[in-house]
Amino acid sequence: MFSLTVRDHMMVAHSFRGEVFGPAQRLHGATFVVDAAFSRAELDADNLVVDIGLAAGALRAVLSELNYRNLDEEPDFAGVNTTTEFLAKIIADRLARRVADGSLGEGARGLAEISVTLRESHVAWASYRRVL
Amino acid sequence: MFSLTVRDHMMVAHSFRGEVFGPAQRLHGATFVVDAAFSRAELDADNLVVDIGLAAGALRAVLSELNYRNLDEEPDFAGVNTTTEFLAKIIADRLARRVADGSLGEGARGLAEISVTLRESHVAWASYRRVL
Amino acid sequence: MFSLTVRDHMMVAHSFRGEVFGPAQRLHGATFVVDAAFSRAELDADNLVVDIGLAAGALRAVLSELNYRNLDEEPDFAGVNTTTEFLAKIIADRLARRVADGSLGEGARGLAEISVTLRESHVAWASYRRVL
Amino acid sequence: MFSLTVRDHMMVAHSFRGEVFGPAQRLHGATFVVDAAFSRAELDADNLVVDIGLAAGALRAVLSELNYRNLDEEPDFAGVNTTTEFLAKIIADRLARRVADGSLGEGARGLAEISVTLRESHVAWASYRRVL
Amino acid sequence: MFSLTVRDHMMVAHSFRGEVFGPAQRLHGATFVVDAAFSRAELDADNLVVDIGLAAGALRAVLSELNYRNLDEEPDFAGVNTTTEFLAKIIADRLARRVADGSLGEGARGLAEISVTLRESHVAWASYRRVL
Amino acid sequence: MFSLTVRDHMMVAHSFRGEVFGPAQRLHGATFVVDAAFSRAELDADNLVVDIGLAAGALRAVLSELNYRNLDEEPDFAGVNTTTEFLAKIIADRLARRVADGSLGEGARGLAEISVTLRESHVAWASYRRVL
Repeated sequence: MFSLTVRDHMMVAHSFRGEVFGPAQRLHGATFVVDAAFSRAELDADNLVVDIGLAAGALRAVLSELNYRNLDEEPDFAGVNTTTEFLAKIIADRLARRVADGSLGEGARGLAEISVTLRESHVAWASYRRVL
Repeated sequence: MFSLTVRDHMMVAHSFRGEVFGPAQRLHGATFVVDAAFSRAELDADNLVVDIGLAAGALRAVLSELNYRNLDEEPDFAGVNTTTEFLAKIIADRLARRVADGSLGEGARGLAEISVTLRESHVAWASYRRVL
Repeated sequence: MFSLTVRDHMMVAHSFRGEVFGPAQRLHGATFVVDAAFSRAELDADNLVVDIGLAAGALRAVLSELNYRNLDEEPDFAGVNTTTEFLAKIIADRLARRVADGSLGEGARGLAEISVTLRESHVAWASYRRVL
Repeated sequence: MFSLTVRDHMMVAHSFRGEVFGPAQRLHGATFVVDAAFSRAELDADNLVVDIGLAAGALRAVLSELNYRNLDEEPDFAGVNTTTEFLAKIIADRLARRVADGSLGEGARGLAEISVTLRESHVAWASYRRVL
Repeated sequence: MFSLTVRDHMMVAHSFRGEVFGPAQRLHGATFVVDAAFSRAELDADNLVVDIGLAAGALRAVLSELNYRNLDEEPDFAGVNTTTEFLAKIIADRLARRVADGSLGEGARGLAEISVTLRESHVAWASYRRVL
Repeated sequence: MFSLTVRDHMMVAHSFRGEVFGPAQRLHGATFVVDAAFSRAELDADNLVVDIGLAAGALRAVLSELNYRNLDEEPDFAGVNTTTEFLAKIIADRLARRVADGSLGEGARGLAEISVTLRESHVAWASYRRVL
């Protein structure tokens, strides 16, 4: 199995609802350093998992929908706790949609899996992995 | 599949028995930067893999049983080579016990897997992964 | 010259005023991984720059005044752009006050300099260095 | 499942053929920081995944066949795009051969899997994982 | 003293002349992860060392003159060993020129110093620091 | 001012004397990831700060005198607290001696300064800087 990973980041504000979150119930923020890993069983004719430029561009496009925003005010997340693990899934699903619509090139249709990791600090991170 | 990882560290002394260990047969030491990853198929009602505060606390508690110690003198490890890979299993198993006894919260009973990585330097690390 | 550095982090929301900030004029957030470095010409009688436990505690105390907050609503920062470089100075100055009031131990009175670095992502960070 | 990883690096020149590669069609170069991970279900009698000295030596030997070279002129890679993901497989396969021929010790015959990751920058890396 | 640092990278081929370089006399390559640090005594009216967008853009522009190239064929470097430390100076000097010509904004004229670090692997890096 | 840094590591056991050290008064250990930085005003005729191979070799040689040892039993450190900051000075001084005796090459006599950083974990490190 091959994989290719590209890294980018976003900076968002949000708050959480529920006692389990303690002081994170207050409006605060995070830098998420985001690693998007694309996997497949065999390389394409160019010896690539996916065009790295298109992959990085797709990640940037997906993050730009969230970057420099207060997630509490995003209609998509109304009433939802936008935890690190939840956002990993949102980003993975949105990347999957871009793979499906051809944004990552025709070759990307051979991709088998996407895994997204969000690093919220030097001591904590979360991931979501899904098939395509 | 979702995962959440927390990082902490411990500083221990130990020595190894067996020619394969070369100079590491002498009493020496290591800082182990420890990453504990908890995984599950679906998030809980709060959109969490596990309460990150309880997870970090459980890791700290498990490491405090080993931290600032000479492992050669720990009864639990009598006659045992406390290699990095062996310690990864010890820590994973002790975290699993804490999941089972409820220390990581009721929601943590939905966890499927634990993976523990010990980084012993910038050029070597070891992991152990197990189901719950 | 000797130095000792301890690392911690904080997660805040804020917004900026001024066209130069582009999309960062919107309410957003950041994780700041904070490195506080203490320097002096000679070690103390214990061969220390400063008691690392007290240094880490002082950094944690200073960060807890900012952590999990919307800096736009903090009276101390009314009408101020809480840029990364500005926050580096705030934290350095607050640590300096704690050195002066004895919170880092009597030995810390021998410290000559404090330098604070805030990492806002994997591609950007800012520092402030001052004498004591 | 246990794993042990060792890290080393190589510095090579190469160029790519195909419009998908854009400016990387020109002769350029890369430092690849290479992580080789060895996995197995149970530890050996010394509590090891593999002798770390032999593992690091095998990785160094494999990389030395590529290091400080222009890959465009290597007969093994004639007419081939030596992408990061392709090189990950080359290195994993060559390590697998060394496991099979006993270079990593008799105990290494218990290894189940090799995974090789090549980091080409702080924002991109590729991996290949195979069974033994 | 305040500083702001931005990170980017470039991937180049080159070779060295002189026995001291050993196998690096052959054509090979490197990824240089480049950190450009800008320093000044006081922040500007926006509480900035320099506009981070303009700083990142200037670094990208300077690196694009070298990226994806064989430095042995660049007229600027004819007969010169393009060592890591030498390239750090080239990049610092070219950034200094952009500060002087206003590319980093009017406020950047208050900058006092530039320091450039090139990381060539996980175990080696070089820097050049100069006044403005 | 130019600098070149090389990284290596050592794994030692030791204990501390004095209440300020808390649990670190027990015999424990540490991995120190060691960065040795060599500085000078102008490059040599090869465009080098120092021969990187000789620099890395000198660092390895200095570390091998300490590596895989219990520092409490080293005659050089009898009755001394081998703190991270103290060890940084020991290593810098021993490197300086090697510069002086020609071990880093004739060109190394142009070096102006050595700085040594010991990283004891992901959250703490210490440095010592001296002139040559």
